[in-house]
Amino acid sequence: MADERDIQIVVDDVRERLAQSEPEQAAELVAALHPADGAAVLEELTANEQLAVFRALSDEQAADVLAWLDEDDQSEIAAALPTAELSDILDQMEPDDAADVLGELTDEQAQAALAEMEEAEHVEDLLEHPEDSAGGIMLPHVVALRADSTAQEAIALLRRVKPADESAYYLFVTDEAGRLIGVLSLRQLVIANPTTRLREIMNPNVISVSVGADQEEAARQFERYGLLALPTVDEQGRLVGVITADDIIDVIQAEATEDIYRLAGLDEEASVEGSIFAASRRRLFWLLVNLPTAMLAAGVVTAFQGTIDKVGVLAVFMPVIAGMGGNAGIQTLTLIVRSIALGEVDLRDSWRALAREGLIGIVNGICFGMVVGLIGALWKGLPILGLVAGVAMLANMIAAAVAGTLVPLTLKLFGADPALASGVIVTTFTDVTGYGCYLGLATLLLQFFPR
Amino acid sequence: MADERDIQIVVDDVRERLAQSEPEQAAELVAALHPADGAAVLEELTANEQLAVFRALSDEQAADVLAWLDEDDQSEIAAALPTAELSDILDQMEPDDAADVLGELTDEQAQAALAEMEEAEHVEDLLEHPEDSAGGIMLPHVVALRADSTAQEAIALLRRVKPADESAYYLFVTDEAGRLIGVLSLRQLVIANPTTRLREIMNPNVISVSVGADQEEAARQFERYGLLALPTVDEQGRLVGVITADDIIDVIQAEATEDIYRLAGLDEEASVEGSIFAASRRRLFWLLVNLPTAMLAAGVVTAFQGTIDKVGVLAVFMPVIAGMGGNAGIQTLTLIVRSIALGEVDLRDSWRALAREGLIGIVNGICFGMVVGLIGALWKGLPILGLVAGVAMLANMIAAAVAGTLVPLTLKLFGADPALASGVIVTTFTDVTGYGCYLGLATLLLQFFPR
Repeated sequence: MADERDIQIVVDDVRERLAQSEPEQAAELVAALHPADGAAVLEELTANEQLAVFRALSDEQAADVLAWLDEDDQSEIAAALPTAELSDILDQMEPDDAADVLGELTDEQAQAALAEMEEAEHVEDLLEHPEDSAGGIMLPHVVALRADSTAQEAIALLRRVKPADESAYYLFVTDEAGRLIGVLSLRQLVIANPTTRLREIMNPNVISVSVGADQEEAARQFERYGLLALPTVDEQGRLVGVITADDIIDVIQAEATEDIYRLAGLDEEASVEGSIFAASRRRLFWLLVNLPTAMLAAGVVTAFQGTIDKVGVLAVFMPVIAGMGGNAGIQTLTLIVRSIALGEVDLRDSWRALAREGLIGIVNGICFGMVVGLIGALWKGLPILGLVAGVAMLANMIAAAVAGTLVPLTLKLFGADPALASGVIVTTFTDVTGYGCYLGLATLLLQFFPR
Repeated sequence: MADERDIQIVVDDVRERLAQSEPEQAAELVAALHPADGAAVLEELTANEQLAVFRALSDEQAADVLAWLDEDDQSEIAAALPTAELSDILDQMEPDDAADVLGELTDEQAQAALAEMEEAEHVEDLLEHPEDSAGGIMLPHVVALRADSTAQEAIALLRRVKPADESAYYLFVTDEAGRLIGVLSLRQLVIANPTTRLREIMNPNVISVSVGADQEEAARQFERYGLLALPTVDEQGRLVGVITADDIIDVIQAEATEDIYRLAGLDEEASVEGSIFAASRRRLFWLLVNLPTAMLAAGVVTAFQGTIDKVGVLAVFMPVIAGMGGNAGIQTLTLIVRSIALGEVDLRDSWRALAREGLIGIVNGICFGMVVGLIGALWKGLPILGLVAGVAMLANMIAAAVAGTLVPLTLKLFGADPALASGVIVTTFTDVTGYGCYLGLATLLLQFFPR
């Protein structure tokens, strides 16, 4: 359990060893750490230093560290290694980790490495499944037990096949055709009477997910049922693998990050690391999407230019009405997007959500309309300005609630990500309705403004 | 594995049974489901229906369902039950789940229930720890093995004490003083030679977390090391409990939701369910926080009222400069807040983050300044308007980068949540600097505008 400071100390030591041309000693320092920390050390090094240390590790150590490296460093190292060296290391990795590394390489490189691997079969099975499907994150080699076996026989089988740690917490029971018919925990097996048949101790209500399902669907099952492992089945209900909670934690964090970033108009690849110009380009893209919509608001203002020319004080409340409406819209939007992600709101709930948010918009709009109206009347000594600003505030809060609810639900209806740039759409909507109502109403009531 | 539709069918059946005064049959329908689904059925019922079904369940069934109910329904049912009935049910629950239920009750109710419980001790241990600490989410009864035991002896011990499923994946090894000195998986124990001593197969580098640590710190360890379980230790390094991955999944989702909601100025309790007026009140609070800051922007506009009165066309670009600056600020803010949450950015990285975001702000500011400047010059035929808008755009993009980086890092420096309402602060900042630069520059160059 190392913190950033400890990592930095090892990084310095490793650099010193490398400077003295002692890559073996450097590798020993890395190998002494938990592979996650070893990977954190490597990530601080330059590409050349990384490769020097990495090649001085044993195949098993290299496999452990490689599995924990971030994608960029993984692909850089894997691409730089001779094929024979890479395939030896991949053979030492869990198939799902090996598949991730191969996925970072070009097709040619991946095929060459697979051809020289001894354990290629399991990895090839995995590569058939999309990376973000249940099949793409499962461990493919799961020990299946028979319902008629005794506890003793099952333990003997486990001793023989020595399943991987992660996949061995729940044990799955299949019928003759390989179909999943029950589950029991290793604990139940260990504490059972040795002659008890698995049929008697297994739980026949086993929760599973289809290999083809989205990884988010798998994550939903983990949350819903508080699972530590979830078996995957094919279309015939046959057991093909198991997903473990540690992999689901990564999925949940990645999905939450994606939603947070997309709501803000950031690419899901956004990071505090990496090239500034690449980051700049990606953000420019989203800001550029926003520009025409901002110009739309500018167009609305232009349409009422004559009114502003006559009553310049109107400009004072423009930021308030647009800003408050935008914030209210983002509140509703964020609530709806997150509730969709957590499975609390579905398309079938659209009307109920709209009614609820609309009602909140009306209540808050009345409150804010009165406050803004009062400020307008008292601050500028113009009751008519207060009236116009207050009514526009109410209208914009209702518009914010409607847009904040319907934009993400509409995106979902058309199969798009509800979070995708919806912040930009909603704030444009509130800008346009806010300025439109405010300046439009002022234009209608122009005769009541003193000039 | 039931979806919403299946749940609704059972809800209808349950209601029918209740209408015919057959609560036992209704309870049987609920008990036949996975407790998570049984709880989902109960959540659809009225308080009276809920209680009728719940009291017809056996203590064990009731305990299972109660653990899966959401907090509101949990506290409603627990408060409505006679103390003797409640304590019998709590005795059947895992201590961490029982502690959660007791936490929902008044102190008097909780003390009364604890006094009648047989298994009160473990639950009382848990109640000592803050709800959001590692101690608050751990399972407190963990089997500790001795390093000198053989595999066979350890398995015999497990058969005797029959540990709970969730806590039995990793087995922990302690010394005479109860200090945690090693870990092995149940799988390693099962496949080991029966006479091997645990000392020889255990891993002495065991990752643990202090009972007093924040639950987020525990979640960080799970992510960093891909764990399925994490032992908790006291100040002397003695083993006191274990946290399992299923509980951490809930923590990670809750923390992500809290960040997403706070960024948008929503209460972390926000929900698509519950009272509209309560929701309205909570959101009003955040919008009210925003009002003075929006008025600040209105104040800046007022300061330049004379300029707007003379050159009304200036109002057209106000939404563009404020809106684009606000979006760029939210991009940076979101990236920094999420990176802090994921442990990728720390206070020590402040200068690097500021330099990086500042540089991106300059690059994007130059690009956007030119685009906005061109639009200003061509659309309105006023090169001077383009110049002013373009320069203000550049200045505001830089301000957005600075505020988006420094606001969350400053909140963190003072021990506050970096996400807390920082969206409101950042957009106020960009509003004020945007309007200030734009209208200020226009005032300086007023003589060059045609009138």
